[in-house]
Amino acid sequence: MLTVNIIGSGNVAHHLIQEILTHPSVILQKVYARNPANLTVEGLEQSIICNDIQELKTADITIISVTDQAIEDVSSMLPFSGQLVVHTSGTTHLDALNNKNRRGVFYPLQTFSKHKKVDFKKIPICLETENKTDLHTLQELGKILSDEVHFINSAQRKALHVAAVFVNNFTNHLNSIAEDICEQNQIPSKILQPLLQETTDKLQTLSPLEAQTGPAVRHDQQTIAAHSAFIKDNLTREIYQKLTQSIQKHHGRKL
Amino acid sequence: MLTVNIIGSGNVAHHLIQEILTHPSVILQKVYARNPANLTVEGLEQSIICNDIQELKTADITIISVTDQAIEDVSSMLPFSGQLVVHTSGTTHLDALNNKNRRGVFYPLQTFSKHKKVDFKKIPICLETENKTDLHTLQELGKILSDEVHFINSAQRKALHVAAVFVNNFTNHLNSIAEDICEQNQIPSKILQPLLQETTDKLQTLSPLEAQTGPAVRHDQQTIAAHSAFIKDNLTREIYQKLTQSIQKHHGRKL
Repeated sequence: MLTVNIIGSGNVAHHLIQEILTHPSVILQKVYARNPANLTVEGLEQSIICNDIQELKTADITIISVTDQAIEDVSSMLPFSGQLVVHTSGTTHLDALNNKNRRGVFYPLQTFSKHKKVDFKKIPICLETENKTDLHTLQELGKILSDEVHFINSAQRKALHVAAVFVNNFTNHLNSIAEDICEQNQIPSKILQPLLQETTDKLQTLSPLEAQTGPAVRHDQQTIAAHSAFIKDNLTREIYQKLTQSIQKHHGRKL
Repeated sequence: MLTVNIIGSGNVAHHLIQEILTHPSVILQKVYARNPANLTVEGLEQSIICNDIQELKTADITIISVTDQAIEDVSSMLPFSGQLVVHTSGTTHLDALNNKNRRGVFYPLQTFSKHKKVDFKKIPICLETENKTDLHTLQELGKILSDEVHFINSAQRKALHVAAVFVNNFTNHLNSIAEDICEQNQIPSKILQPLLQETTDKLQTLSPLEAQTGPAVRHDQQTIAAHSAFIKDNLTREIYQKLTQSIQKHHGRKL
């Protein structure tokens, strides 16, 4: 049996609370949010919500899931010391937490939107602590919530967050650009969905180097020139050209 | 009942032949390939393969599935005229086909690798012809093979191909960059798989504008600066910065 406090009401806090409520072996002791009205998790009892951080009691794990900039302040305001306190940020060093408590990180590597359910079992949980005993405690929580628990130190987590920006944020934006191109040419953008799905599916069995197709890797300069001429927006054209160049550089180097 | 010739032995030809062989209502009359040894489709009878283009007889549809550069030559070498002849290219104009035959396009919007099975029913088939009767014939074939048949003219198809490069080629390459970052930091790159899957899943219910998360859209300059400093390769850093700038421009414009 583990007791847990959660601080925050953003997307990560929302999904963490939602998931923890489904596991009887984890007791959600208290949830603190500056603005409790943001806490809209179904089944979350009002009696465990507070909006005065001083009301928090010690728990096995206190999880701070707030914006990166607020982690330092919030951790220094905690009304206890010597306890295990972790943040959930991909970019923030463990040191950002106030050192009056035992520090750690519990970083779920996923993109969360409040109204989109996720299968928590499949989310890689990246753990880091200052001492081994705390790592066991965090691991216990991690394994209850997910099938994928990893030990990732602060330097690795920073690298991982950059990688995640490429995989999620930038991939999403490429789809935004593609959708714009379709709309500008009276093509239903839904038409691209199966291609995106197959792009992802392929990467489950092939490496991205093996899966690479298209004019860039074929060095089809005629098509590349035609595409560049077609794209009217300067920034989008620069992105097209840089990515093309990068594909050619990667494949020149690796194959 | 439709009779079909196929010319080519590349990835698209391979999957088209494989699929057509499963539909009794389409008769695969002849397959021509310059190098028949490349034709490795299971169940394809040797008797219908030829490597002399002069052996081709007329069929309801002759599908030319060769490299973009070869379409013009191959179509001019056909030993018949006045027949429906189509190519399968995303980038090539219908006009590239020799005008001794009735011209059309049968473009399956998907990324094909020989050894990766695809569900043809879900592949959008983009059709174009010079006259309406031929469009009906192509549509008949399209509907047998897929649930998604679209009429897309040459100008639209060109736009669609650019969009497809962003959705597939570039997304795949972003994953290549992310994998490199993981490897350089002793992180198993498999850890990114669930994030990529969720990125794709989200786009089935949310628009890319709604689904956008991360430091760029949050205008989190501190994280953006830290990421830029972290990325040692100049070209990769430029890609990071251009995509960040593009996300911010898109969201400034649209939200």
